[in-house]
Amino acid sequence: MHEITRRLAEFWRDGRGAAGMVPLHAPAFRGNEAAYLQDCIQTGWVSSVGAYVDRFEAMLADITGAAHAVAVVNGTAALQVCLYLAGVRPGDEVVVPSLTFVATANAVSHCGATCRFVDVEERTLGLDPARLDDHLARHRDRPIRAVVAMHTFGQPADLDGLAEVCADHGIALVEDAAESLGSLYKGRHTGNHGLVSSLSFNGNKIVTTGGGGAILTNDPALGKLAKHLTTTAKVPHPYRFDHDAVGWNYRLPNLNAALGCAQLEVLAEHVTAKRRLAEDYHAVFAGLEGVRIFRETPEARSNYWLAALLLERPDRALVERVIEEAAAAGIQCRPIWTPMHHLPMYRHCPRDALPVTDAIADRLINLPSSPAAV
Amino acid sequence: MHEITRRLAEFWRDGRGAAGMVPLHAPAFRGNEAAYLQDCIQTGWVSSVGAYVDRFEAMLADITGAAHAVAVVNGTAALQVCLYLAGVRPGDEVVVPSLTFVATANAVSHCGATCRFVDVEERTLGLDPARLDDHLARHRDRPIRAVVAMHTFGQPADLDGLAEVCADHGIALVEDAAESLGSLYKGRHTGNHGLVSSLSFNGNKIVTTGGGGAILTNDPALGKLAKHLTTTAKVPHPYRFDHDAVGWNYRLPNLNAALGCAQLEVLAEHVTAKRRLAEDYHAVFAGLEGVRIFRETPEARSNYWLAALLLERPDRALVERVIEEAAAAGIQCRPIWTPMHHLPMYRHCPRDALPVTDAIADRLINLPSSPAAV
Repeated sequence: MHEITRRLAEFWRDGRGAAGMVPLHAPAFRGNEAAYLQDCIQTGWVSSVGAYVDRFEAMLADITGAAHAVAVVNGTAALQVCLYLAGVRPGDEVVVPSLTFVATANAVSHCGATCRFVDVEERTLGLDPARLDDHLARHRDRPIRAVVAMHTFGQPADLDGLAEVCADHGIALVEDAAESLGSLYKGRHTGNHGLVSSLSFNGNKIVTTGGGGAILTNDPALGKLAKHLTTTAKVPHPYRFDHDAVGWNYRLPNLNAALGCAQLEVLAEHVTAKRRLAEDYHAVFAGLEGVRIFRETPEARSNYWLAALLLERPDRALVERVIEEAAAAGIQCRPIWTPMHHLPMYRHCPRDALPVTDAIADRLINLPSSPAAV
Repeated sequence: MHEITRRLAEFWRDGRGAAGMVPLHAPAFRGNEAAYLQDCIQTGWVSSVGAYVDRFEAMLADITGAAHAVAVVNGTAALQVCLYLAGVRPGDEVVVPSLTFVATANAVSHCGATCRFVDVEERTLGLDPARLDDHLARHRDRPIRAVVAMHTFGQPADLDGLAEVCADHGIALVEDAAESLGSLYKGRHTGNHGLVSSLSFNGNKIVTTGGGGAILTNDPALGKLAKHLTTTAKVPHPYRFDHDAVGWNYRLPNLNAALGCAQLEVLAEHVTAKRRLAEDYHAVFAGLEGVRIFRETPEARSNYWLAALLLERPDRALVERVIEEAAAAGIQCRPIWTPMHHLPMYRHCPRDALPVTDAIADRLINLPSSPAAV
């Protein structure tokens, strides 16, 4: 057993006293989840309108500081609509990191647009502003309509740097904050720095609605349009069925919003638990040569959604060995996603050099990060 | 008060003893709904994989007789994927009825395709096979990839007629069975006659998952592809994140599937209740000149999802008068949807003459149709 696996197993079995399987990420329901679901069944309000949807949106706006939050069916849908609101149309191009979950790139495709991959920086695991600036300067002739900053595993990207580059080039900054609910950048919530941003409440996220997402914006017109377009663009009327645009049926059901309200009530606890876990991991691997736990930048206060161990040098064999040894010991780890530019459907997209992305892909191991202490 | 409204109010107040507001359609949760939701919270399985998703899909296949059922996030998403599976790509055209909910046309738009509207027949409220045949014969030069048969208010369209025309022209028949779960055509379930079909479980449907839908097909390859593409096209592997196509995040959460399982257990009861209600309405309006309750064709056994009163002649003023009078009396009625070819975003789509659609739009009033007796 490699020393990484040994220390990991010791931490979970002896340090935390975990008896059974230690999952990568399991949701925790210790609050009002059951009560709110019960309420939906008793009142009959389970579907696309209902008090929990309104409350969930108000809570999200309150937590993130965004003026408008629109609950939708999942994070991919949220990002697709964000890109549409930023003006992305078929034939356009959108800069995204290659180091991301496939949903980021798929949202671009669902707009009929093409991804353009730019490298990340090791410091944040997010888009590198210097590389972005250089890339945009060399491709002024292309219809690049937006840049998507994704906050990897909850670690905020360099938002000031990216915002400045985007402003210089007159291109919209969109945040894919699917993983960073509860993460701050310079004291301000992620998802609250770009033109529009997306959140996700999938089952593996810091809080969950089963499946769900949200659109955040501080622009009142975009907020109103986001709500209109994601609710089939129906024109309000007591009984007539008129619609004034090609809209989406991206409404989050009241049932899922109810779960979300109960989960948002404990978001701060989940952030605290994850930050403590990251510190524990840091201590576990301190002094082990060639290995470190990824830690937030001075500008950031991360939700540490998924804890990440970084090897000093790329070593795919070691990454897979540790994951497999840990699995055999009942501890679920995983590698980072295969970078987008290696997937068959995105292999031919235009891209900058991606040395950091390729290196990180063979250096990173995600460690168990459930919000509930085992 | 018009005689129509008077009889309607008398039926609900005196006949059925309804005290409060009579909604157009409210869901009924009298079975295992609360217990199954509780189970999701207790086990922690609320999200995109889980035992209820598998069970819900198996129940749907069993009920409809379709070989494959894939649960997805809503009916619009289901129809979009059905069209994709039928080969519809950007720039293509799809024949749909103009007399439909906007989701049917939006699903075509979401494929990057253009709607082509053909008229319905009064007998079924669905696409008219003779008009379709004539229209297709006159437009052989166009890239028409699919025909969508929508089963209006649960009344099956003329599936044999439409299937024959589609076969003659070598065009795929897709069923939009969003409203017709529980409806049979010649003894066989709707959604089980075309190449692929979509269902909806929105809150106003005969059974609900809060929000949800499904794809049905008897083609094993299409069934497998539907599941793969709607679950982000992830390549199965214990820990690697590889995806081999631009997929969608259209997974139905386990939480919503749990509600759906409980609802499917009482689907037959809901069909019985709605069929009885339609007969009651028939009796209420029997003998009133110029008015009749829409009834199923001899080939059909309808779920009567939404009961419909038909005026003999178009009279928009009367339609709205009855709806407003009924609303004032606490009884919620509604007109049929504004036909697609009158909406701003579909006004310029190619179309056949639509006299029946335009007439029905000013002749039809939907009456309260909740599955639970008040």
